[in-house]
Parts: sequence; structure tokens; C-alpha cells
Amino acid sequence: MGLPAGPPRVVVVGGGFGGLQAVKTLRGADADVTLIDRNNYHLFQPLSYQVATGALSPGDIAVPLRRIVRSERHVRVLMGEVTGFDLGARELTMHADVLGGDSMEVPYDFLIVAGGSNYSYFGHDAWRPLALEVKSLDSALEVRGRILQAFEAAELIADPQTRESWLTFVVVGAGPTGVEMAGQIAELARDTLPGEFRDADPRSGRVLLVETADRVLTSFPSSLSRRAGRSLEELGITVLVDHTVVDVQADSVELQARDGTALRIGTHTVVWAAGVTASPLARTLADASGVDVDRAGRLTVEPDLTLSGHPEVIALGDMVRVRDPKSGEAQALPGLAPVAMQEGRYAGEAISRRLADPAASAADPPFRYHDKGTLATIGRGRAVAQIYGLKLSGLVAWVTWLVVHLFYLIGFENRVLVLLQWSYSFFTHGRGTRLITDAAGTRAEAVVGG
Amino acid sequence: MGLPAGPPRVVVVGGGFGGLQAVKTLRGADADVTLIDRNNYHLFQPLSYQVATGALSPGDIAVPLRRIVRSERHVRVLMGEVTGFDLGARELTMHADVLGGDSMEVPYDFLIVAGGSNYSYFGHDAWRPLALEVKSLDSALEVRGRILQAFEAAELIADPQTRESWLTFVVVGAGPTGVEMAGQIAELARDTLPGEFRDADPRSGRVLLVETADRVLTSFPSSLSRRAGRSLEELGITVLVDHTVVDVQADSVELQARDGTALRIGTHTVVWAAGVTASPLARTLADASGVDVDRAGRLTVEPDLTLSGHPEVIALGDMVRVRDPKSGEAQALPGLAPVAMQEGRYAGEAISRRLADPAASAADPPFRYHDKGTLATIGRGRAVAQIYGLKLSGLVAWVTWLVVHLFYLIGFENRVLVLLQWSYSFFTHGRGTRLITDAAGTRAEAVVGG
Repeated sequence: MGLPAGPPRVVVVGGGFGGLQAVKTLRGADADVTLIDRNNYHLFQPLSYQVATGALSPGDIAVPLRRIVRSERHVRVLMGEVTGFDLGARELTMHADVLGGDSMEVPYDFLIVAGGSNYSYFGHDAWRPLALEVKSLDSALEVRGRILQAFEAAELIADPQTRESWLTFVVVGAGPTGVEMAGQIAELARDTLPGEFRDADPRSGRVLLVETADRVLTSFPSSLSRRAGRSLEELGITVLVDHTVVDVQADSVELQARDGTALRIGTHTVVWAAGVTASPLARTLADASGVDVDRAGRLTVEPDLTLSGHPEVIALGDMVRVRDPKSGEAQALPGLAPVAMQEGRYAGEAISRRLADPAASAADPPFRYHDKGTLATIGRGRAVAQIYGLKLSGLVAWVTWLVVHLFYLIGFENRVLVLLQWSYSFFTHGRGTRLITDAAGTRAEAVVGG
Repeated sequence: MGLPAGPPRVVVVGGGFGGLQAVKTLRGADADVTLIDRNNYHLFQPLSYQVATGALSPGDIAVPLRRIVRSERHVRVLMGEVTGFDLGARELTMHADVLGGDSMEVPYDFLIVAGGSNYSYFGHDAWRPLALEVKSLDSALEVRGRILQAFEAAELIADPQTRESWLTFVVVGAGPTGVEMAGQIAELARDTLPGEFRDADPRSGRVLLVETADRVLTSFPSSLSRRAGRSLEELGITVLVDHTVVDVQADSVELQARDGTALRIGTHTVVWAAGVTASPLARTLADASGVDVDRAGRLTVEPDLTLSGHPEVIALGDMVRVRDPKSGEAQALPGLAPVAMQEGRYAGEAISRRLADPAASAADPPFRYHDKGTLATIGRGRAVAQIYGLKLSGLVAWVTWLVVHLFYLIGFENRVLVLLQWSYSFFTHGRGTRLITDAAGTRAEAVVGG
């Protein structure tokens, strides 16, 4: 492969579950590893909705990347945004604000790109600034501020209809994140806030969960979907399956039922957790290599996760579809942390092998996802789980969820503190970090004033 | 006093130490109490510098105001910004973004204004957007992001001089906050970050503490100032007493020594902790009443903290000077939490007394501050304290500081968690929340790009 004099350079783009796992797997490799991320932290993204509702602090679910790889002297972390790839020259372009407009080129011998995905507005990009998300830590903090501000607004506003619209929360998309968000907002309104307001009763708040499909949690067996639906209703959530969002305004959303009925709902708080659109890095890589992307912007990679014609480039996670070794058809794996982590480990092992024996590079067996199960939590003591084919619900599923999530809080030395925080919140219905901080304010003003 | 039919209305502006203490003292009073604040939380401000350096999370030192007064059914909390007073009509004007440009009028029978203060740029308001502060929670989060970004920048930039300027931190003002900030930044660079960077060595970072006076901590006896100065130097901090800031730019500051020598220092991170300028509410009240303000914008109040000619209006805390009952001269008390808290308690008691017996209103004894002592911490195990005249330094002062601060974390049910967090950080040199979040990014771009 014509490696240069120093150790081979492996560059990993993205410090999410996939990228970080690749870096960890390269621990023993004789290589210079560079990890590039826009943020200085790894986010335990499955719990970002807990930050969005004040149950956990950002520091509980985000840990500095530098701290994670601190003891691995062959790993370097760069904070910046990757903007382009030159696959021929084997280098990428990175932008960082501190470079004052300049970019820097980062050369590689092996490249792993794990850029993740965003939610999709299905072509309605005008809705994006009006809706809220819990994908990133910053957006989760914004959601936290906006939800709390809605209750503050309701307390100030005397007009009953306007007040009602401030106390109405619409969650779009009934996948695990949407279900979790709806559950958390309902618990906030029902258990945490009552008693703290004098004019507006948080208990009169409404949470609507909107889903285009005919059931919640479509990735689960339908019996668990039914149980989850019941749990949501027990929490007072209005579950609107067979409904599609057709318009989003600053103070309302319009829904359309499958039978064509239209429904306009006054609300200032729309949390979006639907659809998938791959990181723009997928298209950047596609343009650089001539490989195609699908409608969700996902890059097609080979069965061994490499880019066609570029065995030195691996792409993984939510931003790719993997070609089936037999049929040759590209297939999207579920957008779950375990998928990304297994792919990251596979990528790290493949590169380690090739570094040890450059001649063996074509011999990798195709990547295969081992599905150990999926979990979704709805609220305190309420969850559904499918683990090795076993279906669980209720408290036992919730405890499973808790154990699995604590176990997987990778690199989190403060795991015990998080557990204490959770136990405390569980028994007191408290939410320690119900703070409206700046990120929220700025955006809220823009939306409310506009 | 011509009270209306319902219970008398007491309005408290500001949920800091003074305002909150007044509300708590009014617990038993037969009155409708309204607490107004721009933020939805009370901030334990003496520890905001710990958030600014990643040692504590915002949720550790800020607690929702509604939670604090939850069980007091006669207290109502409104989130908004007070913009004017009509002392004749006995009402104030409040603005909240959610009111969509409209304001609301809040009537009162008794008014307590505790708006606090800001740092002063001594007429150089152009420096304000370039410098950082730890006065508010939002600004502390911004400082956290900016300090961490400076180390990230140093890792990316190859030019030695530019890198050095990113690793240079200038703290202006050697009062308790300045001393604490300098100590924390030095510990971050010296103990927490080394080992996490590959190109830039955080240990080569410089912390400069600039003070116009001839010693640090001028409010302490000079023997303690000397000890604090030695502790700062042991931490590697360059203490520049007898130096004044004469210019602040995005990438440098200029200092002038007392002998006239000028000194320009390359830096992107200037933390400002000098001077005092009262909350604009002081001038608003002064304009409404014809009372004067001093050069720092502080309102002069009577010995019983009332506004001259308006026994129903009390102002307190950093935004006032109190008239001496004998000499009649106005005097500024130290800008410390205990002063504000004692004034808040005094105000609450005075109003409770007048509510119980309206005829007794003129009989209040003048307010007197009981100085139990002052504390300042410099770093792990390093502090100075003067308590009831007793001078302490080193570990014993630091433990005293720790105990006092934990004891006074009012309303913080998670006090034990904070203690655990601290103990953990103390033994590991760790800082759990070294996260660069949005507020930081936005501002940093503006400054760096400009």
C-alpha cells in the first residue's frame, strides 16, 4: 500500500458510538490515530432526552473525548468540522473556527467516517427552525429551556386559549426517542411541576404523540407496541397514530389523519423525532468517489463497510447502507448504538489486521450485525424490551433498560453519581436541572418574536 | 396605608441572595408575595467560577425558584424583566419575551428591589464583549467553553507565538472571584488537562492575575493577602499587582504598571472580575424618586433600607449604599452574599412587622451588618479566611470554606451529590463537565472571527 516512513495514519471522523469504538479497537495497533469531532465530547445520545427534560445534567451523559483516549498516547484528538475528502491524495479538509477562516488538511492511510444522521423533515426544511430536537447536547439543552419556558409563559398569560396552546406539547415520531420524550414531558407536567405554579396548572398540559404508521415503536413486535401504547395513555398522552404532520407554524401544527381529516393544534413546542437523513459527510464521500446515496442521503458501502474502489476508506453507522454480500442490494441497518458500535469494532479490527499484514487486505469477512435486542422506556417503571427474542414490559423491562444503560455509559467515571441522581429523582419525582439557560433563550426569542 | 380588600401585596424583584431571603422571611406574613426574576433559578453565585472551569455542573449551583418556594402557597413566581416603576401608582412594569412585545403591570403595596450588580469596565464598554465574566450562569458556561476552546485552538495551531497567546489567560481583578478564577484555570492547566493533548502542553499555559491595587484580596488583612499571593505563585500564577488594564483587544490586552511601563500580552481569554456597577434598576428607581446614585450607579437608601419618601419601597444588596443613621453619609457595604442575606431578612421582618401593625411603620431600627467573616479559596487545599477576627490560611481555611459553602447551598436538595462530586474531583483532579456547549460557541466565533 506504499505506507510512509512513520507509523500508518488512521483518521477517524466522528466521536459517536461507532467512531469511538473504532478508536478503542485500534488500541494495540501500530498506528497514529487521529479522532476528529465537531464537539469536544462523546455524547451518550440515547439519554439526551433526559437532559431535555431536566432529569440529568449534560455532564452526566457527555464526557470529553480527550479524557476517554487520554492514556492512549498514539491517539490524537482534533476539534473541528470535516468539510471535504480528497480520496486520490488521501487527505481530508477540516475547518475550525479558531483557524480564522483557514482550513487544514489531514492526511491518512486509512480513513473511517462515522458522521451519524439527523432527523428528516421530509423536504419541509422550513419546519426545522420551528421544531426542536434532542439529537445533540446543544439541541437537548434548547428543548429543556423551551419546555420550561412554555410553562412560564402559561403562568403569565391570562387568555385561556393562548395559555392552553403554551401547555400543549407535540412530539412527532413514535420511535424510541419520541416515545421517551412524550413520556418525560408528561411526567414533568404531572409529577414534577404541579404545586409550583399558581395560575396555570401544569396537570392541564397536553402531550400529543404523532405517528404516521398505525402503531408506536414500529421496530418492536406489535404486542409490545400495544403495551407501549397503553402505557403512554396511562400517562395521559394522546397517541395519534395514522396521523401525518402537514404544517408547522410558530404557534400551531396541522395534522392529517389517514382518512383525510385535518386537525390544527395550537402549540409553541414541537419536538421532532421522525425520519432519518444521513450526515452531509455521506454525500461528500459519495461525490468524491462516484458512489450513490439513497433518498435519505445514505452512502452505499460494500459488505466489509469499505467504499467501493477504496479499500482504505470505511464508512459506518447511520450514514450508510451496507451492500448484502449475496444479493448485492444495499440495506439500512437500524439506527441504534449497538449497530454503530459493532461496526466500529469491525472497522478497527479490519484495519488492525491489515496493518499487521498488508497483503491480507481483501480477506475480510462481511460485516454482520448481531441483534441482542432493543429497549425503549416510556416513564418511571414503564418500558418495553425485546432481548434475544424475549419480550419484556413494565417494571422488569424498565430495570433491564436501567442496567443496560448504566453498563454502557462508556468512559463515564461518574456512573455511580448518575445512578444516585436517578435513584433520587425516581423516589422524589424531582428533576435537579430544570434550568433555562442561554441557548434556549436566544432561539425562543427568535421563534416567539417571529 | 389604604390597603385593598385582599391581603397586602408584597413584590420582590430579584431572586438572588437578598430577594430570596426576604421572601423566606415573609413566610408567616399575611400577604400575597410575588417574586420576579429574569431567570427561572436562584444561582449560588459564589460558586459560579466552579462551573466556569468544569468542576461543577450548572444544576449543582442553580435551583429553580419555583422549587424553593413550592410549599409557600402565598408566593407566586413570575419570570420576566422589570423595566420601570410607577412609585405614585405603586406598580411596576415587567417585560417577558413570551408576552410578544407587550408588558404587564404588577401592582404592589410593599416593594423590595434586590437587583444586584455587574462588573464595571470603568467607562470602557467596548471591552465588555471581548472579556468574559462569571457573574451569571450563562456567562460562566461561556467562560467554560472559551477556556476549553483556547486549549483546543492551541492544539491545532502550529505557530509558536499564536499558540502561546491561546495558552495565555488573563484574569482582571484580584478580589475573591479573580483569585478563585486564576487558581482554577491554573489547576485545570496543571493538573487536569496534561496528558490529554499531544502537540500543545497545557502545563506551558500562563495565568496572569492583574490588580490595580498593591496587593491581592484588598478586603482581607494584609497578612492574608501575602499568604494568598504566595499560594497563587505556588500554583504558577503570575501576580501583577500595581497594574491597570488600559486596552483589551480580541487577541491581546495592554497593561500599564504604576511606574508607567506598558506591557502588551497576547491572549484570547480575558476574564473580568473587577469593579462594581449597580443593576440598572438602581437608576430606574432613582429616576422615579429623585434620589441620587453614586458613580457606580448605586442608589442611596435610608438607614432602614427604604427609599427616601417611600417607606413602602426597600432596596438592598449590591445596588445600594446605605445612609449612616448618625452622619447621614451613604456607605457601600461589601458586595457579599451575607450582606444581601442579612438585608433581605431585615426587609422581610420590617414588612412583616408593618403588616401586623401598620401604625408601627416608622419605628424600625436601622439596618446593621454583622460581619461574621470572609473567605476566599485559591485552589485545592488553599484558602484564606477571616472569621470573627480569627485569621486562617491553608488547608484549615479551605476546609472551613468547603463546610460554609455546603452549609449555605440553600434549597439544594442535592447538596450531598455536590459533596460527592467535589470529593471525587479532589482526589482525581478530574473535572466532570468540561463541555463546550452552544453559548460558548456562538460568542467565541463572533470574537475570534472579528
